[in-house]
Amino acid sequence: MSQEVKSDIEIAQECQMKPIRDIISGLGVKEQEWEPYGHYKAKLSLDVMDRLSGNEDGKVILVTAINPTPAGEGKSTCTVGLGQALSKIGKNAMIALREPSLGPTMGIKGGAAGGGYSQVVPMEDINLHFTGDIHAITTAHNALAAMMDNHIHRGNELGIDVRKVVWKRVMDMNDRSLREVVVGLGGPLKGVPRQSGFDITVASEIMAILCLATGLKDLRGRLASMVVAYTADDQPVTCADLGAEGALTLLLKDAVKPNLVQTLENTPALIHGGPFANIAHGCNSVIATKMASKLADFVVTEAGFGADLGAEKFLDIKARAGSIDPDLVVIVATVRALKMHGGVPKDQLKEENTEALRKGLANLEKHVETIRNFGLPHVVAVNRFIYDTDAETDLLMSWCEEQGINVELADVWAQGGEGGRALAERAVSLIEEGDKNFTPVYDVNQSIEEKIKLIATKVYGADDVEFSSYAKKQIGDYNRYGWDNLPICMAKTQYSLSDDPAKLGRPEGFTITVRELKPSVGAGFIVALTGDVMTMPGLPQKPAALKMDVDENGKAVGLF
Amino acid sequence: MSQEVKSDIEIAQECQMKPIRDIISGLGVKEQEWEPYGHYKAKLSLDVMDRLSGNEDGKVILVTAINPTPAGEGKSTCTVGLGQALSKIGKNAMIALREPSLGPTMGIKGGAAGGGYSQVVPMEDINLHFTGDIHAITTAHNALAAMMDNHIHRGNELGIDVRKVVWKRVMDMNDRSLREVVVGLGGPLKGVPRQSGFDITVASEIMAILCLATGLKDLRGRLASMVVAYTADDQPVTCADLGAEGALTLLLKDAVKPNLVQTLENTPALIHGGPFANIAHGCNSVIATKMASKLADFVVTEAGFGADLGAEKFLDIKARAGSIDPDLVVIVATVRALKMHGGVPKDQLKEENTEALRKGLANLEKHVETIRNFGLPHVVAVNRFIYDTDAETDLLMSWCEEQGINVELADVWAQGGEGGRALAERAVSLIEEGDKNFTPVYDVNQSIEEKIKLIATKVYGADDVEFSSYAKKQIGDYNRYGWDNLPICMAKTQYSLSDDPAKLGRPEGFTITVRELKPSVGAGFIVALTGDVMTMPGLPQKPAALKMDVDENGKAVGLF
Repeated sequence: MSQEVKSDIEIAQECQMKPIRDIISGLGVKEQEWEPYGHYKAKLSLDVMDRLSGNEDGKVILVTAINPTPAGEGKSTCTVGLGQALSKIGKNAMIALREPSLGPTMGIKGGAAGGGYSQVVPMEDINLHFTGDIHAITTAHNALAAMMDNHIHRGNELGIDVRKVVWKRVMDMNDRSLREVVVGLGGPLKGVPRQSGFDITVASEIMAILCLATGLKDLRGRLASMVVAYTADDQPVTCADLGAEGALTLLLKDAVKPNLVQTLENTPALIHGGPFANIAHGCNSVIATKMASKLADFVVTEAGFGADLGAEKFLDIKARAGSIDPDLVVIVATVRALKMHGGVPKDQLKEENTEALRKGLANLEKHVETIRNFGLPHVVAVNRFIYDTDAETDLLMSWCEEQGINVELADVWAQGGEGGRALAERAVSLIEEGDKNFTPVYDVNQSIEEKIKLIATKVYGADDVEFSSYAKKQIGDYNRYGWDNLPICMAKTQYSLSDDPAKLGRPEGFTITVRELKPSVGAGFIVALTGDVMTMPGLPQKPAALKMDVDENGKAVGLF
Repeated sequence: MSQEVKSDIEIAQECQMKPIRDIISGLGVKEQEWEPYGHYKAKLSLDVMDRLSGNEDGKVILVTAINPTPAGEGKSTCTVGLGQALSKIGKNAMIALREPSLGPTMGIKGGAAGGGYSQVVPMEDINLHFTGDIHAITTAHNALAAMMDNHIHRGNELGIDVRKVVWKRVMDMNDRSLREVVVGLGGPLKGVPRQSGFDITVASEIMAILCLATGLKDLRGRLASMVVAYTADDQPVTCADLGAEGALTLLLKDAVKPNLVQTLENTPALIHGGPFANIAHGCNSVIATKMASKLADFVVTEAGFGADLGAEKFLDIKARAGSIDPDLVVIVATVRALKMHGGVPKDQLKEENTEALRKGLANLEKHVETIRNFGLPHVVAVNRFIYDTDAETDLLMSWCEEQGINVELADVWAQGGEGGRALAERAVSLIEEGDKNFTPVYDVNQSIEEKIKLIATKVYGADDVEFSSYAKKQIGDYNRYGWDNLPICMAKTQYSLSDDPAKLGRPEGFTITVRELKPSVGAGFIVALTGDVMTMPGLPQKPAALKMDVDENGKAVGLF
């Protein structure tokens, strides 16, 4: 079989893309409402939203997953595949996805735009600079850092305590050497020395803001309220105090417009924004999801990591910020990953092991309960891998049916939309039944502690939450600053329902420890950190970049 | 008068731009040879060069100037104005300019795309992210830095001496706090600590390479040979040793394509690349100039700073790398700037002062001699400012005529192309006379010392050159590495013909001191530093960014 399998980039480069102008006209977007970026990418003007604001929203399908494992779940692939399948059964469908970050592309991933016959294209562009959104965010973020250090250098009128600067710099790169740096060395002409560091751009609060803003004015307001530092007596200093929000908005005026591309089967896809799924909420932009729901009858979108992190944040943060009323949740599971949750090590996944699979099902069970508690219709999508045995697949499917859980087999990696027909039909019928009663986990007006406890107990299955003494002090400060009515963004390991990455399956009897909080006032949430979160990745021993090149025709090679 | 004067951005936003598609078809560029970036910007494929390689080159007009002063000379404005004027008199003309860097735009400049009625548009886009070329260079540069630090972190097989790393990081920002930093702090998971720093992106060797490369293959070869560090026994370590040249080429595959825009009067303009004019050669890309010369009968292009730096480097470095055979040099001078060279302080420039003007003419005289020594036809363009008196203008014009120097008055800021008719007619007739014998200042096979001495004595009017003992040691090393046959790129103050910025006019009896050399082996030149060169600017007390914003319609404000 292996000699037949084409790489993602080979499949993508063989695709017959339609000119983006044709996709645009299929959507009914007017000539003055879009700008081309090459012949196969476009930015859509926010005027589309104004023009269609009176129209009914299309149905929103959120794709989430079990806790990720090194075996891979193929959530993006299923999202793209389901969008293609909906088109295939004659529905007017669109996809809304996150933009890949260059850092991981150069590091391990090599590319992130779906896989096999369920990809978005042009995959080289999407995986490289795309339409420049992430570069614009890098620039805006670092402009604010430069303006703040310039303010300190030129007299520090605002009284910023240089030991309490919280605004770091960013780069769209995996560069561990920038995690901790000292800036401002070299004497009085070279700034004021202080310890700082760099995050990867997608961890910037500006990325989270771009993804939660509902328009340019909302974007500007959110940028203004970002906290960059504190004074000696612990008063927050904001972007607005530095007068920088106008320049930052100007730098982001094109980045805020969603990017239109297409799938291998020409289903339209908006790819826009890509915040971290731990210190941020891990979903594409509100603007893209909302615009897609105005332009199509069905929107398929995804959230980062498993349902405990991504779906919870989509439903408690993004849906709230964007007034999005989701209609269905697809929970992606694979035999391989469930076997890992049942205790099988990665190198033994090719061997049939129904016992481990049965054990691992507990993980899936918990995520299904979570979505049920949100009051949303749901279906499990079993993403087929080539080494899955019939016995394993049958076990998984029949277990779901025994539990009364909707389930469909999806073979979208190998077959594209055709492999997702059953899933698409089921999705449509579940949405038509309309048996939903969407209820977020918490009310924003509950206290910070209460909100965190509700997430930990209801979504993770924890017994309780412990707050470090530092976190308790911070909660007191935040209450005083008036930040207590913001939603919570949990930063927790994606590998476990608990805060211990080694606890696979469905751990029980555990406590979540909140070590520290981090305000993202502009984004509009309080991050609760339950462990170390790496916000600047490093490169591996052999970075993917070593294989990247252009051939003699200028075509990309080595993205996969 | 002042209430009538519109700002540059007001004039630019009132302009009736043609869709770039129309400009494209006017140039005879084929459908598959270009890609739109919005409706008013495009990238042209390098295939245009291949298709037209058999055609005769259009005439190349280089615009240079006297030594710059704080009074401003308007070299870009004259370049755009002359291009518009050539169109106006019925010639098939194109303009080739540098891309502005965001750092200075956010700092002091506010924008850099010509001025008044001689601008390139859309000016907001050109001054902001444009088509992303500079962001691509930032990314490629920093990817190499990350790969090098990763190599050191993971065992340092190449034996890089961390004290001899010469590859810094870059950012397209004015950020003095990044001039000197320590990276890799925080323990074994965060890299190897070492002192380093950031340059502004346009100072990156990759920017110089992009501007001197003749195609994608040449680009890749140049990237491969960049020196990033030395081993303990002083052997150079290159980008190729790290295996990074393929990934860097991939990251630059679109940036290498020139960007097409238009002037206020719809004359086509290629804006591509913008290297520093001190540690690099300060001209737009070879590819843009060559492509323009294939697409038009007349190409107007400019070089940075005065003729001592910009024109010398255009003629000795760029023309050599790109096999460009220039036909005419325009030397821009203003009454105001010549008065400053004659000793008038900036706050007294509005007062008539023919005596100071007469004294300052010596500066112009030297630059005319320099261009004459290059064997090229030339004309002085007197760029009119509103406070120039008739007596002053008459003096300048008649002095030139007495000296047998071609001279024309240009009023392109206020009148656009119409104000440059006489200059355009004169340019065409001088080119038609074809009285040229282009001879570079030096032969690349002369020694490093000889080449530097020839520039200093013939172009600057110095008596001699002194080399520091460190520079002498470096020359010995470079001879051993086989770098001695590269052209020289002088890094000298732009304000004086000497290496002392206070010596205005035409200093005599001075010596140039070369303190240090810097190899740019990929770009293909050796930089000779004659003083401190700032490669990372800082922000002023009140950065231009403070005035930048978007209005309620999403339109840029505060760029000027």
